[in-house]
Amino acid sequence: MELGYASMKRGRGVTSEERRWPYKNSRTRGHGLRLKWVKSKYMSDLKHAFPCDECIILQRNSVDRGLRMKSWLVALISGIAALVTGLLIGHFAIPKDGITEQGQGSTQDIDESLIQRFMGEVDNKRIEDNLRELSKKPHMATTKGDIDLVNLMLDRWQNKETGLDEAKKVTYDVLLDFPDKNNPNRVTVVAPNGTVLFKSRIKEVNYTKDQLDPDVVQPFAAFTPAGECKGRLVYANYGTMDDYQHLNKTIDLNNTIAIVRYGGTGRGDKGINGARFGVSGVIVYTDPADINDGKLSDKNETYPHSWYLPPSGVERGSYKSNFGDQLTPYYPAKGYTFRQAVSNITGLSPIPAQPIGFEDAHQLICGLTGDEAPEAWQGGLGCTYRLGPGFHNESSFADSDVTVSVHNKMEIKPSDNVIGIIRGSVEPDRYVIYGNHRDSWVHGAIDPSSGTAVMLEISRVLGKMVKEDQDTVMTNTLFLITPCSPWFHKILQPANYQSDKYSPGAITTSVTVPGHQDLSVYENWKKHSNRTSPLHGVIPNMGSLGAGSDYAPFFHYLGISSMDISYTYDKTKTKARIYPAYHTAYDTFDYASRFIDPGFTSHQTVGRTAGNVLLRLADSAILPFNIRDYSEAIEQLYQAAKELFNTELSNHNISLAPLHSAVTKLKEAADGLHLRISEMQDLSTSPLKQRMINDQLMLLERSFLDPMAFPDKLYYRHIIYASQDSAVETFPGLADAYQHATVEGGSWDDVRKHLTIITHTLESAASTLEAVI
Amino acid sequence: MELGYASMKRGRGVTSEERRWPYKNSRTRGHGLRLKWVKSKYMSDLKHAFPCDECIILQRNSVDRGLRMKSWLVALISGIAALVTGLLIGHFAIPKDGITEQGQGSTQDIDESLIQRFMGEVDNKRIEDNLRELSKKPHMATTKGDIDLVNLMLDRWQNKETGLDEAKKVTYDVLLDFPDKNNPNRVTVVAPNGTVLFKSRIKEVNYTKDQLDPDVVQPFAAFTPAGECKGRLVYANYGTMDDYQHLNKTIDLNNTIAIVRYGGTGRGDKGINGARFGVSGVIVYTDPADINDGKLSDKNETYPHSWYLPPSGVERGSYKSNFGDQLTPYYPAKGYTFRQAVSNITGLSPIPAQPIGFEDAHQLICGLTGDEAPEAWQGGLGCTYRLGPGFHNESSFADSDVTVSVHNKMEIKPSDNVIGIIRGSVEPDRYVIYGNHRDSWVHGAIDPSSGTAVMLEISRVLGKMVKEDQDTVMTNTLFLITPCSPWFHKILQPANYQSDKYSPGAITTSVTVPGHQDLSVYENWKKHSNRTSPLHGVIPNMGSLGAGSDYAPFFHYLGISSMDISYTYDKTKTKARIYPAYHTAYDTFDYASRFIDPGFTSHQTVGRTAGNVLLRLADSAILPFNIRDYSEAIEQLYQAAKELFNTELSNHNISLAPLHSAVTKLKEAADGLHLRISEMQDLSTSPLKQRMINDQLMLLERSFLDPMAFPDKLYYRHIIYASQDSAVETFPGLADAYQHATVEGGSWDDVRKHLTIITHTLESAASTLEAVI
Repeated sequence: MELGYASMKRGRGVTSEERRWPYKNSRTRGHGLRLKWVKSKYMSDLKHAFPCDECIILQRNSVDRGLRMKSWLVALISGIAALVTGLLIGHFAIPKDGITEQGQGSTQDIDESLIQRFMGEVDNKRIEDNLRELSKKPHMATTKGDIDLVNLMLDRWQNKETGLDEAKKVTYDVLLDFPDKNNPNRVTVVAPNGTVLFKSRIKEVNYTKDQLDPDVVQPFAAFTPAGECKGRLVYANYGTMDDYQHLNKTIDLNNTIAIVRYGGTGRGDKGINGARFGVSGVIVYTDPADINDGKLSDKNETYPHSWYLPPSGVERGSYKSNFGDQLTPYYPAKGYTFRQAVSNITGLSPIPAQPIGFEDAHQLICGLTGDEAPEAWQGGLGCTYRLGPGFHNESSFADSDVTVSVHNKMEIKPSDNVIGIIRGSVEPDRYVIYGNHRDSWVHGAIDPSSGTAVMLEISRVLGKMVKEDQDTVMTNTLFLITPCSPWFHKILQPANYQSDKYSPGAITTSVTVPGHQDLSVYENWKKHSNRTSPLHGVIPNMGSLGAGSDYAPFFHYLGISSMDISYTYDKTKTKARIYPAYHTAYDTFDYASRFIDPGFTSHQTVGRTAGNVLLRLADSAILPFNIRDYSEAIEQLYQAAKELFNTELSNHNISLAPLHSAVTKLKEAADGLHLRISEMQDLSTSPLKQRMINDQLMLLERSFLDPMAFPDKLYYRHIIYASQDSAVETFPGLADAYQHATVEGGSWDDVRKHLTIITHTLESAASTLEAVI
Repeated sequence: MELGYASMKRGRGVTSEERRWPYKNSRTRGHGLRLKWVKSKYMSDLKHAFPCDECIILQRNSVDRGLRMKSWLVALISGIAALVTGLLIGHFAIPKDGITEQGQGSTQDIDESLIQRFMGEVDNKRIEDNLRELSKKPHMATTKGDIDLVNLMLDRWQNKETGLDEAKKVTYDVLLDFPDKNNPNRVTVVAPNGTVLFKSRIKEVNYTKDQLDPDVVQPFAAFTPAGECKGRLVYANYGTMDDYQHLNKTIDLNNTIAIVRYGGTGRGDKGINGARFGVSGVIVYTDPADINDGKLSDKNETYPHSWYLPPSGVERGSYKSNFGDQLTPYYPAKGYTFRQAVSNITGLSPIPAQPIGFEDAHQLICGLTGDEAPEAWQGGLGCTYRLGPGFHNESSFADSDVTVSVHNKMEIKPSDNVIGIIRGSVEPDRYVIYGNHRDSWVHGAIDPSSGTAVMLEISRVLGKMVKEDQDTVMTNTLFLITPCSPWFHKILQPANYQSDKYSPGAITTSVTVPGHQDLSVYENWKKHSNRTSPLHGVIPNMGSLGAGSDYAPFFHYLGISSMDISYTYDKTKTKARIYPAYHTAYDTFDYASRFIDPGFTSHQTVGRTAGNVLLRLADSAILPFNIRDYSEAIEQLYQAAKELFNTELSNHNISLAPLHSAVTKLKEAADGLHLRISEMQDLSTSPLKQRMINDQLMLLERSFLDPMAFPDKLYYRHIIYASQDSAVETFPGLADAYQHATVEGGSWDDVRKHLTIITHTLESAASTLEAVI
């Protein structure tokens, strides 16, 4: 869960998250919250068998995705651990009706008083205390700080008063990358006579003592190779293929060192792209234009005076393209697992890279010679950016090369996931998962600990409610993650669904914005970001799930409907690409409590929203998904393809008619199911019928997977929302194949093939929703 | 369903079956029976929506597998059309208890009187009449005879008195291969002076007028390329790699024509292997030693005097290696589907091939010169087999080459599946499928029509029972396909399960062998073929599912537990590789009714057995699978690996300990589930608990799939039972990787990788079975 910030800053990062799943080609970002809820009616009945021993329920570690993905795959496909399900309630209904939950499923829908009680219990002060505790020390994956947090999570969730029914840890052995403490990475400028003219900083400037902690890791580009390379410096903007191509028109890039800014493309791509043109090393920095709204000075403008990034601040990050443990694709990183050779890992930069602060970058970029960089390439350092190669004659670096020295070292290290469980009694084989990652790059107050702080508070309130109410039973399991699968709109936008018989109630309308008792989260959201839906008129814009965060393997590989709840900032007030302390040594409790959410009321709001969603997913008789929202989203993707591609497709004798037919079938099947749900008369008499409909809803997302659709994209199998290179928002396989055929001289047969895949998948999805009887 | 023969002949063929899925590397063979049973309590409630519009329920066509596989995949993974499930009954219980089926699931287990009534109704005379009708004309896929049978099936299943709730056809456009009527394929011997010395027959000799039907297709090797090739003749035994390697030691095979006999390897392999050594064309025949127990003469020994193959009889067949439509791998062969180029099809023979009768083969083989063939290569033609190349000087063919002229032509043609449905009321989203293919090579009386004849009788009886009993309701749906998933042992071998609380009753003990009222099918089976099970002692040997028939995509690609019921013949009495008329023009009603099953009582017995299984799968409260049989089978595979591989694995520092641990976990989880099932107290109070356990049972098979395990094997994803090259009966990926590493110089890393895949899959399967609460 990405947390709210007081100033509505959009938190985009995820420390080791990025490390694992670089934010590449994702339409949006965010990460997931997962929590499994299973509660026995009688506490003494609790047993400890849990069929998915690797899945992360409340807290997960930074590391291996392979296992979790595969185990979920197996678990889900085997029907044991299926996610995103509302579940038959029965529990609050049970005492009222005097019917045991074993004989019946659910006799009425969700109890709103339970929701209200939950909302009242969520305490901003406790969230603040959680965050202080979680972020007091750096906790990079597998370091002592990280292991201490494993134990903290276990302590909390095993607490007899407010813990969960069960908590345990599961360990994997994953490939990580670290700099050498004794031999720090450096960017240097050396004169032809050997004099060292410039050395990049090793650590950020201290302002609050947090930065002095000996466990603050040196800024580094994880998963880029060790090595020393030397050459003329060039400025390559964001390091996209287009950027290097532009440079390559006038400059021989062989054996040059490229300085590039963060943004525009995935971290790893900056080196991968550069190497294609002969670049031998990459220096990466955060340009003030992209993060600081022009603020440059730590005397009064940047942190600790504001939330802006100080001149020495450096974004760390992982420079790789693929999910999961790099040595064990598709399989869990266990002791028994076969590990491929490091040389066989795909999606890594082949050349060394090192990130630096903009103070250091200023010295390098403002000394460059050569042509002026294009206007779009100009940044906020206060000088005219030139392309190079090398420094101009007036520069103190004239005639000098730049050297990048990297001493990173990969290691396989043991790393833990922590799993907490709340048991259910009626349908314990259906789960809702709520999760967050634990490890950070440095102190990680916002990324990730703000999410963990809220998760701990939610789990405390739920654990307490479960333990206090022996006559009310948490029946089942939750999953929640706001980008989301399209049909989560319903649960967040209930105002539009008042005509639904089985409405989840008003989540975002019932939660109000901190300090504005009359402004609902829903209305505030709609004000800041909206779109027009054919079904509902003007509604908040939710966005779709990209590839950038914790939910990615659940959604993209396993087809589990997912949601990523976060607050974001008002983009009219800042141009910051992300919150400025992201992945730096300044992402501390001090920073969070003074500049992100003083009083922690935004955290509280996110907690109320998230818990609300979790409870409704777990206890609604019929899953609170509006199937018509999914079919509407798919129709829009089809319309985009038709408008933008149809002429050229026709020129190649390719028809969109079969796709249109499939889209229509899906719409009709969705409308039919929607009608059947709204016509359901009596929840009390047919637990199996409820289960059947919930299975149709739960499993629709799975029907969008095709393991053969993207053979070159590790883990991507969702034909509606896989990653894509093309900027056209349509079906990703079609968008990329079309771009490949029209721009890059690729084969039209690939377009035909992807149209087949999409058409067939949608036909199959429609059959999933059709009436069984 | 492979049908019983009076003489207990084992029917192995499947006309177009073989065409699609050559019998290659399968440990055993057979094909599937699938029938969906869904029955509403009130006939007027019946609607016609069926969520899996491409799946074959009662009868399927010859053709496209892609769609069916994918649609089942989607359907199954989406939970809409999950197979092999017992299902909550309720129906016979309902009137007795006065409880509506909507409110309860099941209140008692299966009603044995229903089974007895079914068994009494199955009529051998009707089966005989069905077979006469089905086999009166040749019905090769997509020919008029085939289309006529589509209409026959629809008529029967749509019959108001004895039809099913619904029947429909679904059409695909599939790639088929046909000879040229006007330009028949030939094998000729031409003297150096151009004189034609020999021409192979175009059609078989007529004995019964059936062979005169103008629709009898010329013998041909479907999916081998058109072309004419000429060269010296060599004899290559069965055309395996070993065979050609042996020849290649002393003979330059370049530009030779190889004559090979059927058997020993897949049809397509004979040409694929030969081409690797430079062979330019292949002639294939059925050696009397492999089929006729020494009988050669049609004057009194072969058909029409016996079941043996006449000298002119030729086995037709499909010479390809991969499942499904060849142009649309993984996708349905619909109008919208992208079709790959024919040149991209893998697994086809690159050189022409033509099958001939042993009369013609005698002239060629008995004239060969060169070294004597090894003893194992000698056949039953009555001369000494020599290797060639070319003919000996005393032969009338001396100095002559052999020419193979093939004029086959591929065509995309529309082809239909016919789907019949019996509806259910309690859990209509669970299915049992029963099926058979329809198309034949010629008249196809045994292959496939014997299976269809029985299926029609079973569906008639069930249709009638459903219609007559307005107060008894067929609740649900069936799937059945006697090689099988290991746990089908329970349903067939109930004598061993009397201690089970939820026993399916005695299927094969309650059905008796025709003409032996005191001999059960079970005891007869055990007498002829048995093994010792650690769990049960001496039991009938069931075998495992190979790749040779209709069930293949369901089992290997979709992970649906499958069963292939057939009678086989007494192997002590004949050495025939298969019933002799297989795929020839002699597989007629006359042949079947005189030499296979006079009186059709074996057909009746198979019908009783199959229907019995179907009813129990559909109506048992808890699925009649013994989970411990599956874990036992897996333990045996592990033991084989340990005994045969462990020493060499240790030499390469590879441990089997993690695999052993996973096998043990699976066993413990299986034992645990078995115990929980036997301890279930009250079926009436917990429909959801029953459903949960049935889901665990149903979905275990799915947990054995890994779509990444065999990237080079189209459609194979089952890590326990995928096709394999190695003869060692252990996990197929391990067996082949081990053979590759030890014999063929392959990498030991592949062994490590497959061990990871197997270990992880079994760990995941264990988690599927573990207790949820």
